[in-house]
Amino acid sequence: MVISKIQIVENILSANDRIAEENLEYLNARNILAVNIMASPGAGKTSVILQTIRLLSPDIRIAVIEGDTAPVTIDSDKVSHLGIPVTQINTGGNCHLDAMMVRKGLQHLELDHTDLVIIENIGNLICPASFKLGTHISLVIASVPEGDDKPYKYPGIYRGIDCLILNKIDLLPYIDFNQDYFRKGIKVLNPGIPIFPISCKTLEGFDAWTGWLHTKMPGK
Amino acid sequence: MVISKIQIVENILSANDRIAEENLEYLNARNILAVNIMASPGAGKTSVILQTIRLLSPDIRIAVIEGDTAPVTIDSDKVSHLGIPVTQINTGGNCHLDAMMVRKGLQHLELDHTDLVIIENIGNLICPASFKLGTHISLVIASVPEGDDKPYKYPGIYRGIDCLILNKIDLLPYIDFNQDYFRKGIKVLNPGIPIFPISCKTLEGFDAWTGWLHTKMPGK
Repeated sequence: MVISKIQIVENILSANDRIAEENLEYLNARNILAVNIMASPGAGKTSVILQTIRLLSPDIRIAVIEGDTAPVTIDSDKVSHLGIPVTQINTGGNCHLDAMMVRKGLQHLELDHTDLVIIENIGNLICPASFKLGTHISLVIASVPEGDDKPYKYPGIYRGIDCLILNKIDLLPYIDFNQDYFRKGIKVLNPGIPIFPISCKTLEGFDAWTGWLHTKMPGK
Repeated sequence: MVISKIQIVENILSANDRIAEENLEYLNARNILAVNIMASPGAGKTSVILQTIRLLSPDIRIAVIEGDTAPVTIDSDKVSHLGIPVTQINTGGNCHLDAMMVRKGLQHLELDHTDLVIIENIGNLICPASFKLGTHISLVIASVPEGDDKPYKYPGIYRGIDCLILNKIDLLPYIDFNQDYFRKGIKVLNPGIPIFPISCKTLEGFDAWTGWLHTKMPGK
């Protein structure tokens, strides 16, 4: 039973990678940049997305895929309220998005006039790391209240990413968070990636993050 | 392939439940209470465990099983530093503890003079909910910075628990967190469970939590 379980897991991951490749081709054919946002529950994924939309739109035409484990539309409603096309993927209790779900999300969105697709993955620091979605940029949003030891405890997800956002820096005065220790943990796993400390409350750091994202846009 | 995958998942869960039952019998035969602590990464599982040990030990003789996805001993070292027996289970990147891992952890601990086993699950609000460990009490530690909407977004894990700790209430003045909305979400999923708002910084609320835990001890 163990052997067949491993074989099936390998089959699933390899099938996922193929569909992720197809998603990337689909996006490239339309000159669309796609970003996969991963984080713990409550690190501020939706708040960062909303503020990024406010700063980049309408110059950059954005669409959003919202991953949720439960059939609630709390996050999708907030995105939609900004006039941004959004499609929600309910995983039915599952702990990550996969490439097939994202393919369906892309097909469901009207992408003829889109520059950037932002994908909000399920709040989870482990499982999403194993499933490529077919995006150009994968990133993690860490947050100050989670603690400075998370790169040491959840190394898998920090290894494969292209940039890191450190959110809720407005709480630094009230929390024992050693930025040097945190950055050292990231550096060991993934040297040289850009790190953007930000606050969705004060908007500190957003210019650097959105400026970097802007440089990744094809033809912008 | 899909059918065999579902069958294997069902086999795994049913095998897990059987081992969980055996774990419970093993603990009951020794008059030991066991607690399964689940939470997001960074909600403060280890901090709550350390403070609980400080308040209950040595009157209550405690042992700890530390679940970690990575082979780092950050949390185990902190527990061990208090003179408490601890065994660490490294899941090798896996996203939850299961009953077999806990069985091995129990066998590894010297439990002849133990009243309470505290199990720190992997930091994850989704997967641990599906795997019974064979404990008497399952609980979630939520934390104020995660936001008041988590019961609505991650309902699965809140449904099966016996009590809830709301940690980091010292941050309430700096964060927009509606306790009524949060409690309403819990009430719908799991009416009547005790909720303990606490702070590991100010120690507010710890007397209520440890007092409740004390009432669950067999023969105390």
